[in-house]
Amino acid sequence: MSEQVGFVVWMTGLSGSGKTTLGIMLEAALRARGLRVERLDGDTVRQGLSRDLGFSKADRDRNIERVGFVAKLLARNGVAVICCFISPYRAARDQVRAEVEHFVEVYCDAPVEACAARDTKGLYARAFAGELADFTGVNDPYEPPLCPEVTLRTAVETPDESLQRLLAALSEHGLIPVEARG
Amino acid sequence: MSEQVGFVVWMTGLSGSGKTTLGIMLEAALRARGLRVERLDGDTVRQGLSRDLGFSKADRDRNIERVGFVAKLLARNGVAVICCFISPYRAARDQVRAEVEHFVEVYCDAPVEACAARDTKGLYARAFAGELADFTGVNDPYEPPLCPEVTLRTAVETPDESLQRLLAALSEHGLIPVEARG
Repeated sequence: MSEQVGFVVWMTGLSGSGKTTLGIMLEAALRARGLRVERLDGDTVRQGLSRDLGFSKADRDRNIERVGFVAKLLARNGVAVICCFISPYRAARDQVRAEVEHFVEVYCDAPVEACAARDTKGLYARAFAGELADFTGVNDPYEPPLCPEVTLRTAVETPDESLQRLLAALSEHGLIPVEARG
Repeated sequence: MSEQVGFVVWMTGLSGSGKTTLGIMLEAALRARGLRVERLDGDTVRQGLSRDLGFSKADRDRNIERVGFVAKLLARNGVAVICCFISPYRAARDQVRAEVEHFVEVYCDAPVEACAARDTKGLYARAFAGELADFTGVNDPYEPPLCPEVTLRTAVETPDESLQRLLAALSEHGLIPVEARG
């Protein structure tokens, strides 16, 4: 097997836009191809890396900075890193991009109403009711990517359609082998 | 080439005890063997990961916790990770050990007088003069490892002797191939 090229797939979008769902599916698909994969998401990272941080802009930026540091180290050692973070601020994402050789920004683009409709934890309801401060898309800003490598319309595509488009994009960028077709 | 086993070499000891010097030498030796290597030390980490932290016990513990998180992810993806940190607290080091499959604790054991004598930045002099608070070994505690995998007596061995002992220990633990001898 030739040495694997490391890269970072950065999933950004509102809460409920499908980042983690697709991240998990992508992780499985890449592992099935024999790649080394590490998936970083809010839960794991806020436990091991960012227990001290909240959701102010400064804290969100710091969280993304730390995640970017970890992703960079993993990617330059040949790991496929999947990062699933709301990461609402463009500058913070662009800073990670600047640090990483192969960076694929994936915008999970879904209207806030669609995200709220499938919000199992009831967070949007609480945010709309004014009970949650700093909730991205409701009372805190989200800055969409200007030139993402991939845009997934997760409110209209099925998860499997999104996954196939994502895999196709990674092939086009030469980061994973093109799937053999029989 | 068979898949590389990831591991963490954790260099602990006073400031000036040779952690970084040996870490750099070890990094070169492992790279020469074709391994993927990542070296984490105070400078890089405090820039990308721990800019917010000082040198209180709580902050030191948090710093080591973050480093441990990063080292764990790298090691489980097949990287040889060399961590060079004073890491004065036993419990913090043992927590990293508990998280990492292949953990090699290396105690750079040198008397504080020897470390102070070769301190190029004059930090010990300032600490002895009371100008620096929380300086490990002077006015802040250092808890030596109880059962380190390797102890290097860096005040009496040459750096190359220490390096050879370190490489021999990694071979014995089955983490790097035994050197071919002609």
